[in-house]
Amino acid sequence: MMMKVEDVVLDVNMEELVAKILLNKQPEEYFDTIKKLTIFQQVQLIESLPAEIRLNIWHCIDPLNWWSLIGYLQAETSKNLIRSLPVEEHSKLQKVAIAAEVLLLADKLPKSLIDAIMLDQDEKSSLEFQQALTYSDDQVGRFAHRNILRVRKGISIASVIDRLKRKDFISAVFMVDSERNLLGYIPIAALFNNDENDIVDDVARPVQSVEHDSRVSVIATTRQFEEGMDYLPVVENGKVTAAISISVILHEVQASLTNNTISEAPVQDEDLFGPVNVAMRGRGLWLCINLATAFLASWVIGFFEGAIQQVVALAILMPVVASMGGIAGSQTLAVTVRGLALKRITTANIKLLYRKEMKIALLNGVLIGAIIAMVVAYWFDSVQLGLIILCAIVVNSFAAAASGTYIPFVLEKMNVDPAVASAVVLTTVTDVIGFTIFLGLGTIIFL
Amino acid sequence: MMMKVEDVVLDVNMEELVAKILLNKQPEEYFDTIKKLTIFQQVQLIESLPAEIRLNIWHCIDPLNWWSLIGYLQAETSKNLIRSLPVEEHSKLQKVAIAAEVLLLADKLPKSLIDAIMLDQDEKSSLEFQQALTYSDDQVGRFAHRNILRVRKGISIASVIDRLKRKDFISAVFMVDSERNLLGYIPIAALFNNDENDIVDDVARPVQSVEHDSRVSVIATTRQFEEGMDYLPVVENGKVTAAISISVILHEVQASLTNNTISEAPVQDEDLFGPVNVAMRGRGLWLCINLATAFLASWVIGFFEGAIQQVVALAILMPVVASMGGIAGSQTLAVTVRGLALKRITTANIKLLYRKEMKIALLNGVLIGAIIAMVVAYWFDSVQLGLIILCAIVVNSFAAAASGTYIPFVLEKMNVDPAVASAVVLTTVTDVIGFTIFLGLGTIIFL
Repeated sequence: MMMKVEDVVLDVNMEELVAKILLNKQPEEYFDTIKKLTIFQQVQLIESLPAEIRLNIWHCIDPLNWWSLIGYLQAETSKNLIRSLPVEEHSKLQKVAIAAEVLLLADKLPKSLIDAIMLDQDEKSSLEFQQALTYSDDQVGRFAHRNILRVRKGISIASVIDRLKRKDFISAVFMVDSERNLLGYIPIAALFNNDENDIVDDVARPVQSVEHDSRVSVIATTRQFEEGMDYLPVVENGKVTAAISISVILHEVQASLTNNTISEAPVQDEDLFGPVNVAMRGRGLWLCINLATAFLASWVIGFFEGAIQQVVALAILMPVVASMGGIAGSQTLAVTVRGLALKRITTANIKLLYRKEMKIALLNGVLIGAIIAMVVAYWFDSVQLGLIILCAIVVNSFAAAASGTYIPFVLEKMNVDPAVASAVVLTTVTDVIGFTIFLGLGTIIFL
Repeated sequence: MMMKVEDVVLDVNMEELVAKILLNKQPEEYFDTIKKLTIFQQVQLIESLPAEIRLNIWHCIDPLNWWSLIGYLQAETSKNLIRSLPVEEHSKLQKVAIAAEVLLLADKLPKSLIDAIMLDQDEKSSLEFQQALTYSDDQVGRFAHRNILRVRKGISIASVIDRLKRKDFISAVFMVDSERNLLGYIPIAALFNNDENDIVDDVARPVQSVEHDSRVSVIATTRQFEEGMDYLPVVENGKVTAAISISVILHEVQASLTNNTISEAPVQDEDLFGPVNVAMRGRGLWLCINLATAFLASWVIGFFEGAIQQVVALAILMPVVASMGGIAGSQTLAVTVRGLALKRITTANIKLLYRKEMKIALLNGVLIGAIIAMVVAYWFDSVQLGLIILCAIVVNSFAAAASGTYIPFVLEKMNVDPAVASAVVLTTVTDVIGFTIFLGLGTIIFL
């Protein structure tokens, strides 16, 4: 539902409003303020408040905006909200449903609600609805609009304008050949700035199409967009059949942006003030995976018990060895994961990257290793210990560079998301290699 | 420079092309293929190739596209490329300069080149150019266009269309009152779908404006955009004076997305195949900061030398204590940093988040701590050791939750970017507290 200009008040201090509502917990008092917020401010408000107050906010909001609101809420938050709605609200929700908006969030809705909404649609939209639902919520087909205008090469701008006027709302205009193959896109604003007798070819611009089954998240990271381009053409077997809005793509990028991309602690789309047990389960899994790798490191250390007992300094310095390997590896990882996401790194040039990373590892390893060696030699009054840690740092830097380059590359080849899985594998490698070299050399030299 | 539809070939296998060029290093052979790539494919190609081949690619590209190309290249990569251009190329570049495109990359250009380009502009664009340059490349003012159309409330759609036709290219149309205060924006495509005798009010939509000095990166993370909205109004003292394209914002989000957001190893915008010494310096700094915190952890461990010598198991288990604290803390951190970036967390509700995080810490700490305790008690045949590590894990979980919540919050209040600085502070806290409790209890019980 579109809000009219006069329905909205823009200058509201959101922080103050949240504080006030938390203080006296009677959102009804602010009914008018809340109702007149923009949809995005209402989203912000709901996501800033604990789950038990959210339903009260919901009731202050114009039912005609409920669907857009659900659409813009973070996935987890909207799931929690819908789950908390009383059953009779479901039928109210159903009455105000707009197919296009429901599509954006089909994965968050109970199946019964979707079926009921589909029954309410006329035949044409119901068909489009069902078609869209065959795609996942990371596929272009889910969000593609069919309300596009296809015009042929060589026709006049005047006739394009004429056709635009005779149609219902059109999102995008594309130029095609007689086979409906894509030739270019026509920025609607440009139609006004050329002579109406000119042909559309003069305003057509080259554009790369996407397929119905293309992944939105991939487009979002890999494609760049020219200024003024607001829809991408969607094709089936080369023929233009629909368009997808840049705002859908922007929304996707924003969502990924605020998720932690490369991390040992990925936290996917968690609801800030949602139920504790859901958050706990998601995080517990990662804690356990990391626990396993930490125990692996402990197990490695266990082999060198004798050396540690003789030279406690070895135990004291373990964090330095682990930290340097882990950080250097994460740096390489960050570069590789980005390069892979942007499709800059492929089989064609991965070796070049590997060589560059090894050079950096050598330089930083020797330089920082030398600083560490000096500090250690002075602290524990032992040149031997300094040389041992220098050696461990340099070797571990190489291990870090190699794993940082190849772990995400191999994971991607195996169809595992390198951003999620790389960090934990990498830390395991650098811990195990770092401790083995450091404590191993310690055993050889001091025992 | 805009490319025409017929200049471009879209179906090129980029990976193959990169492999071929790397194999025989004669890009001239592929001159025609490279020239006919879209600008974004040319960008991909340059970023996928080592620095020494890039200049050859550059020479294959139509000079009219040079500026857009520079604009779309990653910051570091384009700096390196421009630095490597022979001096005589600078004057060639200058000849094909388009003010609007130069603006996007003023920070990457030598001052002399910018001055020369400004002299070439007519008075009006030169003035706009200078004005835009007073803003940083993260401010709206740098990218704002003045070619907007302001229409008054109540006028007919026909007269809007008429005014659009009489103007040079217009990016966006806004509805204003008699004082030029913003009332709403008019989607250009909607002008075709209403009766020409209707008033613009019928198609106007509410929109929040931005200021010339607003930060693009903040808009990029915090604002959501409706479908079909392609420009945001830019205001000065409430009066609409310009517009900024959503594509600029999308570009900003994409750039941040591919940077590692929350990390102990931030790698800013590094050129994949740029000079090793530049990459090394950037990373070396972070390695040194982390080195300092690792030594701090070592120093803490040093206090418990006696206990470690008696019970080597304490040293063996240190990675487990450190890992659990670090990971749990990073999870909280991910949630907090995202909430802060989206302006969901403020002084009004930070305590609520803190309480939720403490609950999760208690539950996960006790549960996973118990698993660890059982493994440890069995492994080292010591119930005491199991209880010690249980205690350390639980206390450290609380420390992790508290720091994960408040470190980024405090950093933001101090105007330090929490995404960059939080992780290293957090790990220090969890390492120090974890080791102190674990080894401290070990000392009390075993010595």
